[in-house]
Amino acid sequence: MSLTNASPEAAARAAKTSSRKLATLSTAARNSALDAVYNGLAAARDDILAANAKDLELAKQSAKDGNLNPSIVKRLDLSRPGKFDDMLQGIRDVRDLDDPVGRVDLRTELDNGLILQRQTCPIGVLLIIFEARPEVIANIASLAIKSANAAILKGGKESTESFKVIASVISKALDRTEVPNDSIQLVATRDAIDSLLELSKYIDLVIPRGSNELVSYCQRKAHMPVMGHADGLCTLYIHSDADKKMAVDVVVDSKTDYPAACNAVETLLVNEDVLDTVLPDVASALIAKGVSLRCDPASKKALESKLEPSNHTSITSASDADFATEFLDLVIAICTIPSSSGSSTSAVDAAINHINEHGSHHTDAIITASKDVADRFCNGVDSACKFWNCSTRFCDGMRFGFGTEVGISTNKVHARGPVGLEGLMIHEYRLAGNGQGAAMYGSGGRQYTHKKMPL
Amino acid sequence: MSLTNASPEAAARAAKTSSRKLATLSTAARNSALDAVYNGLAAARDDILAANAKDLELAKQSAKDGNLNPSIVKRLDLSRPGKFDDMLQGIRDVRDLDDPVGRVDLRTELDNGLILQRQTCPIGVLLIIFEARPEVIANIASLAIKSANAAILKGGKESTESFKVIASVISKALDRTEVPNDSIQLVATRDAIDSLLELSKYIDLVIPRGSNELVSYCQRKAHMPVMGHADGLCTLYIHSDADKKMAVDVVVDSKTDYPAACNAVETLLVNEDVLDTVLPDVASALIAKGVSLRCDPASKKALESKLEPSNHTSITSASDADFATEFLDLVIAICTIPSSSGSSTSAVDAAINHINEHGSHHTDAIITASKDVADRFCNGVDSACKFWNCSTRFCDGMRFGFGTEVGISTNKVHARGPVGLEGLMIHEYRLAGNGQGAAMYGSGGRQYTHKKMPL
Repeated sequence: MSLTNASPEAAARAAKTSSRKLATLSTAARNSALDAVYNGLAAARDDILAANAKDLELAKQSAKDGNLNPSIVKRLDLSRPGKFDDMLQGIRDVRDLDDPVGRVDLRTELDNGLILQRQTCPIGVLLIIFEARPEVIANIASLAIKSANAAILKGGKESTESFKVIASVISKALDRTEVPNDSIQLVATRDAIDSLLELSKYIDLVIPRGSNELVSYCQRKAHMPVMGHADGLCTLYIHSDADKKMAVDVVVDSKTDYPAACNAVETLLVNEDVLDTVLPDVASALIAKGVSLRCDPASKKALESKLEPSNHTSITSASDADFATEFLDLVIAICTIPSSSGSSTSAVDAAINHINEHGSHHTDAIITASKDVADRFCNGVDSACKFWNCSTRFCDGMRFGFGTEVGISTNKVHARGPVGLEGLMIHEYRLAGNGQGAAMYGSGGRQYTHKKMPL
Repeated sequence: MSLTNASPEAAARAAKTSSRKLATLSTAARNSALDAVYNGLAAARDDILAANAKDLELAKQSAKDGNLNPSIVKRLDLSRPGKFDDMLQGIRDVRDLDDPVGRVDLRTELDNGLILQRQTCPIGVLLIIFEARPEVIANIASLAIKSANAAILKGGKESTESFKVIASVISKALDRTEVPNDSIQLVATRDAIDSLLELSKYIDLVIPRGSNELVSYCQRKAHMPVMGHADGLCTLYIHSDADKKMAVDVVVDSKTDYPAACNAVETLLVNEDVLDTVLPDVASALIAKGVSLRCDPASKKALESKLEPSNHTSITSASDADFATEFLDLVIAICTIPSSSGSSTSAVDAAINHINEHGSHHTDAIITASKDVADRFCNGVDSACKFWNCSTRFCDGMRFGFGTEVGISTNKVHARGPVGLEGLMIHEYRLAGNGQGAAMYGSGGRQYTHKKMPL
């Protein structure tokens, strides 16, 4: 890794060149580079924390002056109990994952002695743009080395001192390994983001890790694909046949387990049939956890007639905007879905339509006793994750068992939902023959056999 | 399908809405819509050919006036022997492919009674922009219906009359099926391309089918991902140990089987060691097929000393630009790779570097007797397809056994190389539980089992 003051273009070009060397390294060579990074960072703990203390001091002053959000100060702090060790352990965890490179997923005999193979390979050069958290460098450097991708890292200015030291430690560590030093580039140049986002000749994929604003900005400006999601407007629909206890448990967890997360629920849809039966218990449980409810007229009326007056202060009228808002806070919007007068499925369809129109295609859930209704919901909703009778909070790479998480994508191509190392790979085709030409095949000539072969 | 004069935005919005309905249809429903399209087009053959004749007449006049490339006139003509039947057969072929929707490729038990599943699903709305060939409508409509994607088609103005009739026939045919009529939209509005390319809210993927200029234009302008390739600058490297006959066969096929194709070879790299032994036979065979050779000084010198003077008129000096040119014609650029004085691999590395710098990351090939050298070449070259001892012309979805070809992609995300129906799919996650919340798990609570389950 080099902390470069070179131009964004020079950094990107160097990363591209290194990426081809990195792509040819063995699993063992990449894993031993991860060990070297681990050892280097472990040995430099004091230096890194000293640099981090400088960043913290400046940030605290800025926050005091009202120029910085206090939550950023907290995210900057590498000296919080367990934080540094977690960063180190993360490197070991990534090292221990299966090698994602060179996995053969298709092998076909096109003809006797003409064998086609499709296998995974790294994408090339990743641009990772992140905000305050300095441990992201170690995390991203590990993912890049493991997946044989070069990476350009652009961090927020608040953690400059921490970055410098971590970058220099990783750089020295890589110098004693087969991983080319230029394959991890930390760009320190101020205002480099716009230039980097235009360098589609060298950079293959952008992964923004930070606020919605950062992601939207990258999506608008980048000349190459961007992986991620700007919004996490998740919705939960309580169907007419929902079990009351299950509804309470799932809604409370989805809303209150970690309200600032992208997979927390923001809108609750309630079937008209259960406004007086299931909703009041759900609402009381939410209110007991400090949640404010923004209700449409029907749900407001039901709750005001069923709940103790002491709870009424937590219930207000929802505006249209509330159903398009990611609150990221202890607030939920509640909308009534008309009862299905005729067909038993028209209410589900209304819920699906609400979600497809207002949601952000991230994670949406249904509570129903019917598998048919759940299937109809899952088929109709246009989202990365569709959950039945469980919390939206399960949408997460670690919880899904991927071992690591690169991010959660709401893209419609490449990777969607929680993204593990697989999302940093593409495939290539290799064909081996003994002199065949295409003109030998076809009418009157040889015929393709197209025989599936074992992998 | 509707031939719409509505605004591009209205067409895109309607396609998006229809796409959700289309995504829920059974395999049988989609296949029977393909049968209806087949029958409709077969019955309307005379009307379609009459409309096509009008397009042809105008196009011939334009070509005569010098306002239209004569090759476009040929591509327009649906009355050429076999053309109409091929179009019809293509619909049947697509119908008979395996259904790409709903294939489960991951199933994990996160905990007892909490089951995660990943399965394929359609991308949503495709925008297909194509030039003269009117049969593309039938082809694309089939692929879209089979893959449960809605599609917006924007064709070239030369085939307007043919489009109108084909669109109306397909529209009537779909009316009697479960496939929503709006899921295939033909946009006839002139100059609609720029507006369509901005509608990322409704359109998920652009697939341009036509000239390099069209593809580059879409890549520059689109606010959503574009699948395809602008250039097909394929390179073949003859290593020092190459078999002479094999080199002749593979180079001649790669260059002359169909020179206008994107998978035809454009640059030949020759190891210095075989300039006097292998290259002369390769060159004579190419010249016999009418190919002009643009040579660097070393290869020119070798050929002028080895070949009959009568052949010298086919040999000229290459400029730097020739090594960055997709000739799409009976022309090839020849560049000498210095012999590996020290390590036996440095020549391969030089060939790899040439290809990564000058090529278009489409298809590149090596002729060598050594598997080690071939592996090093395939690992080092940053292209969708890497071929060993066979023609670059094999890079093709039909030849690869995919049953159909959506196009060839040089993208670094989503799909790469020849793209079959799989390239029109993305995946979704479904999680089914019985009331679980994320707060139940972790230290002191339940533990995830992450057990792999059979598919």
